[in-house]
Amino acid sequence: MQGYALTMHKIPVGVLGASGYAGRELCALVARHPALSLGFAAANERRGECLRIDGRALIFVAAEDAPLHQTPLVFTALPHGQSAEWVDRARGAGARVIDLSSDFRPGSARSTGVPYGLPELTRETVRGASLVANPGCYATAILLALVPAVAGGLIATDATVSVTAASGVTGAGTSPRRDLMFGEVTENFSAYALGNTHHHLAEVRSTLGAFGGDGIDLVFTPHLLPVARGILATVTLPLAVPLADPLAVWSDFYAGEPFIEVTAGAPSLRDVAHRNVARISVVAAAGVRRPTLVVVVAIDNLLKGAAGQAMQNANLVLGLDETAGLAA
Amino acid sequence: MQGYALTMHKIPVGVLGASGYAGRELCALVARHPALSLGFAAANERRGECLRIDGRALIFVAAEDAPLHQTPLVFTALPHGQSAEWVDRARGAGARVIDLSSDFRPGSARSTGVPYGLPELTRETVRGASLVANPGCYATAILLALVPAVAGGLIATDATVSVTAASGVTGAGTSPRRDLMFGEVTENFSAYALGNTHHHLAEVRSTLGAFGGDGIDLVFTPHLLPVARGILATVTLPLAVPLADPLAVWSDFYAGEPFIEVTAGAPSLRDVAHRNVARISVVAAAGVRRPTLVVVVAIDNLLKGAAGQAMQNANLVLGLDETAGLAA
Amino acid sequence: MQGYALTMHKIPVGVLGASGYAGRELCALVARHPALSLGFAAANERRGECLRIDGRALIFVAAEDAPLHQTPLVFTALPHGQSAEWVDRARGAGARVIDLSSDFRPGSARSTGVPYGLPELTRETVRGASLVANPGCYATAILLALVPAVAGGLIATDATVSVTAASGVTGAGTSPRRDLMFGEVTENFSAYALGNTHHHLAEVRSTLGAFGGDGIDLVFTPHLLPVARGILATVTLPLAVPLADPLAVWSDFYAGEPFIEVTAGAPSLRDVAHRNVARISVVAAAGVRRPTLVVVVAIDNLLKGAAGQAMQNANLVLGLDETAGLAA
Amino acid sequence: MQGYALTMHKIPVGVLGASGYAGRELCALVARHPALSLGFAAANERRGECLRIDGRALIFVAAEDAPLHQTPLVFTALPHGQSAEWVDRARGAGARVIDLSSDFRPGSARSTGVPYGLPELTRETVRGASLVANPGCYATAILLALVPAVAGGLIATDATVSVTAASGVTGAGTSPRRDLMFGEVTENFSAYALGNTHHHLAEVRSTLGAFGGDGIDLVFTPHLLPVARGILATVTLPLAVPLADPLAVWSDFYAGEPFIEVTAGAPSLRDVAHRNVARISVVAAAGVRRPTLVVVVAIDNLLKGAAGQAMQNANLVLGLDETAGLAA
Repeated sequence: MQGYALTMHKIPVGVLGASGYAGRELCALVARHPALSLGFAAANERRGECLRIDGRALIFVAAEDAPLHQTPLVFTALPHGQSAEWVDRARGAGARVIDLSSDFRPGSARSTGVPYGLPELTRETVRGASLVANPGCYATAILLALVPAVAGGLIATDATVSVTAASGVTGAGTSPRRDLMFGEVTENFSAYALGNTHHHLAEVRSTLGAFGGDGIDLVFTPHLLPVARGILATVTLPLAVPLADPLAVWSDFYAGEPFIEVTAGAPSLRDVAHRNVARISVVAAAGVRRPTLVVVVAIDNLLKGAAGQAMQNANLVLGLDETAGLAA
Repeated sequence: MQGYALTMHKIPVGVLGASGYAGRELCALVARHPALSLGFAAANERRGECLRIDGRALIFVAAEDAPLHQTPLVFTALPHGQSAEWVDRARGAGARVIDLSSDFRPGSARSTGVPYGLPELTRETVRGASLVANPGCYATAILLALVPAVAGGLIATDATVSVTAASGVTGAGTSPRRDLMFGEVTENFSAYALGNTHHHLAEVRSTLGAFGGDGIDLVFTPHLLPVARGILATVTLPLAVPLADPLAVWSDFYAGEPFIEVTAGAPSLRDVAHRNVARISVVAAAGVRRPTLVVVVAIDNLLKGAAGQAMQNANLVLGLDETAGLAA
Repeated sequence: MQGYALTMHKIPVGVLGASGYAGRELCALVARHPALSLGFAAANERRGECLRIDGRALIFVAAEDAPLHQTPLVFTALPHGQSAEWVDRARGAGARVIDLSSDFRPGSARSTGVPYGLPELTRETVRGASLVANPGCYATAILLALVPAVAGGLIATDATVSVTAASGVTGAGTSPRRDLMFGEVTENFSAYALGNTHHHLAEVRSTLGAFGGDGIDLVFTPHLLPVARGILATVTLPLAVPLADPLAVWSDFYAGEPFIEVTAGAPSLRDVAHRNVARISVVAAAGVRRPTLVVVVAIDNLLKGAAGQAMQNANLVLGLDETAGLAA
Repeated sequence: MQGYALTMHKIPVGVLGASGYAGRELCALVARHPALSLGFAAANERRGECLRIDGRALIFVAAEDAPLHQTPLVFTALPHGQSAEWVDRARGAGARVIDLSSDFRPGSARSTGVPYGLPELTRETVRGASLVANPGCYATAILLALVPAVAGGLIATDATVSVTAASGVTGAGTSPRRDLMFGEVTENFSAYALGNTHHHLAEVRSTLGAFGGDGIDLVFTPHLLPVARGILATVTLPLAVPLADPLAVWSDFYAGEPFIEVTAGAPSLRDVAHRNVARISVVAAAGVRRPTLVVVVAIDNLLKGAAGQAMQNANLVLGLDETAGLAA
């Protein structure tokens, strides 16, 4: 890859599924990237239409017409189940692929041998890979909250770990749905996928297992927020033993990470909006017999939860600085 | 009290703190009540101003000028700490009082002998009382979710019960605060009072104790929603033993209650907005070793969480039908 | 119709298109009406589903299965173009019809002989009619603002009357559309139908003509608001001669009208939300040579702009009190 | 100023009033500017507090402690009436000043000799100036819409020009006010300052006069939107004679302007959010005798309406590229 940098040519990359929320963010990130240029933006149902990004115009092409063989790297931001075919096509054309669907994530049929791209936890497996499974947005928030405790063996083995999380509506995609219309979402809030039925749980459990957290009883309840973007997850975490300084566990675990902010104050969506960061706070609960922590993590679901993290992975795959194009 | 009804005269009641969110709801509920009329609406900082309720005009008086001795019942909807003095004055003038502050709630200095007015749990202590402590909005949601399990002895004794709840901004009152400005709240979401520091926990713990739940390790994390009104609480509840039909436990416990709706589908704020009801759903979590339930409850924080519940209590105190003026 | 009242039987009425925003409001209004009951609620795509209204359950039927011949009055709240057929069927079955579509409004092919049901302007033509064309939401706001000036001959004959109005998203119906998704509407605002291309203009111009306003140059620009419900219209109105007390012109014109509130302060959507009223304010502009008024009117687009006004018309058609079931 | 660039040193600039909405945007713009650095950020009521901008921490100082003499340029983003004193102090210390208040704008007591910094209209007077009056947000939108027509002599001399505009709440500043609380603004919309009483009219009229539009009868009605940021203005513009291609008038007038986008489609707030651009559309109204245009303009009130425009002015004052630090 270095040849590109030496000659000052930018590396052309492509985006399949460029009209969705994550796809649009990817196009914008590529447009601002110092070492990448946008080779194509494919979106079948909007082919021929023009999208302005930072004042520049972009014409969507059909996926069939995408010059896959001319782009050393392709982002696939297609619906779950439709992505695998295009990943195969892009790889067949010689491109490396960052796949934002769940088709290759841990727990999926085709996950074997595909690195899971949550760089703060799995960086070394991503470097130079030819295909990376980009994590789900909820999974990113939950894993960043839990892994420091799991890796440290801090969680009580007989405990139930409760995770509630709330997401903005862009997490549900751009396809028109009655329940996502403004008139239904404004001034509303609801839980869904009750009883551990959300499909992100597979990649969460599999990744926790890789860090020694196989036996954790995790209960996850997602909620739909009347906001466009952002995920905030709140974890109630019973401990095996009390911790003198719980915040330090997370601070130490993420020391030096450019995209993780461990803070004393509780994070809000506003702190992370339009930024590729996760902000994490940890507090010990008062008035309980069993020592218990409350961990709160906030991310922008479209950046650290999707396109931003995909760019971290692309940088790692291409041998670039992981932070390139991702001002924190 | 019957004399009022027989002669078709309406009972005059007063509202102290009538310009706050709960106070305004109370005035509106009184205005529509078949057996009550609004004797006065007091709000010092807006005295002399006019408020329209359902097309009728209302002039705010100063609290000092409120004709307390002419109203057999007074609602005190004043800030915590300021209410007790006015409760004493109103009772000194012969009025019965429904107090919406925390000054007389379980866990407060003056709670002894004062019934806690969550009628579905404490109805008999409220009937005919001279003073009732109206529950907090979060406490109402949490207790309605937990008491059926506590009373049935269903909760694992060594378990950690996680409660996360999200409230609309009217729960924080009408006083201008920078963090409640539209520009700060829109497109935002945050947790606060991390680590069991919210002041509603005292009345929750005390009331759970009265139902045999003294030893429960409860961790409560409230959140601020970008909506005007509503509270949705999500409870992760580890059980002592599996339940064949968890929903039936709550259905049976609340059988015949006019203001409780136990439903199979997850409730949303929209289901309960502008209604004096609590809607509750219960689901067993999949994929966990210890049987665990997820209980979700939604209320309108200003009605079932404040003014509507206060009207239930007023009806009980005055010997009226508990549902009078409160179409579900 | 009196027989119904004398025997205390309620008149059964039906709603075709009961799952749309206006249809649901109609069902709720009928449920609370002292003299009407809901004979059927038809909504093809939701047939068999249950809707709760004020705590009561309602089962949607298919339009084909609606017992039209058993309901003396039917509301048709169907999409424009689809309504006329069902109006004919309902009338063929002997029902009187309040049609909420544009199919019979002034300017439409089938408008001849059909009274336009804006009672404050056209009340006498509505009484006892067998079919009434219920006005559009924008048209209601604009006509209530303009007719007092037109009828009084106050508008400069060579002037351009500017009307801008902003509507909540429920004005666009319940069909899923990408541009009405929460993620597209929140934090957004836009003008549309620029250059007098909105289809409500026909009924506005025709009705103004009936009041002597044939020659008015009207320019109407609608906007889409990030709110669920409400319309606020702002009219800039150049006058033929100065007016000493412009507010009095509107106050006098609407004297005694139960659903019109002429106020000195500028109205807001909140003043009229969930109420069947129009609130109007009028101010003379400073710093202009030609005397000019600014007229602002706010309505709830689903009540005074749709279902509430339809109920006024139904009451007039059935010989009931026009305000029955419509607490202001 | 060139010495700075040659030696690659960044020019230190200061912000007085750095904790307000415009002030924070200014700090962020300076932080990203290729040739400027943030010398100080002063905000009395938050002195000592820390603000993160793009991942960097910033400590607010008191205005009294601001090192005015070490910053060649100072932005004053203080409340109207309080700004003039600090402008004088900063100039006394040798700094050039971009003042975002109304204290020096056309029509104010101290406007004489102070260039009005709306670069697309007044660029040459701003270059190298020692003090610039940065326009109001509404004024920016209105003037960009009107001046091409005024300068071209297109407006009918006896006509009334109607301007309605709607602004997000950040236009009203950060001071807590009851009417700007989330619970009051959400799901609401209202007109205010009816009858030409908004204080931005002075700078609008004065600037129109400078382009030959002295005799225009302008009626301006502002509205408050439930969004955080953005202004959309809708102008109804009666013409002296018909125009074959009205859009071309605006396109030609703004040809080559990097921050003006003249488009056929109607603009929305989303098109311009977080961008220093004005997007303008122009359409001829159908169905009117007198030829009339509808001009719609959208800006981000905090960028093109405040901080972004201030940076354009700062670049002009310092002899830098006008677009530096302002990617469109």
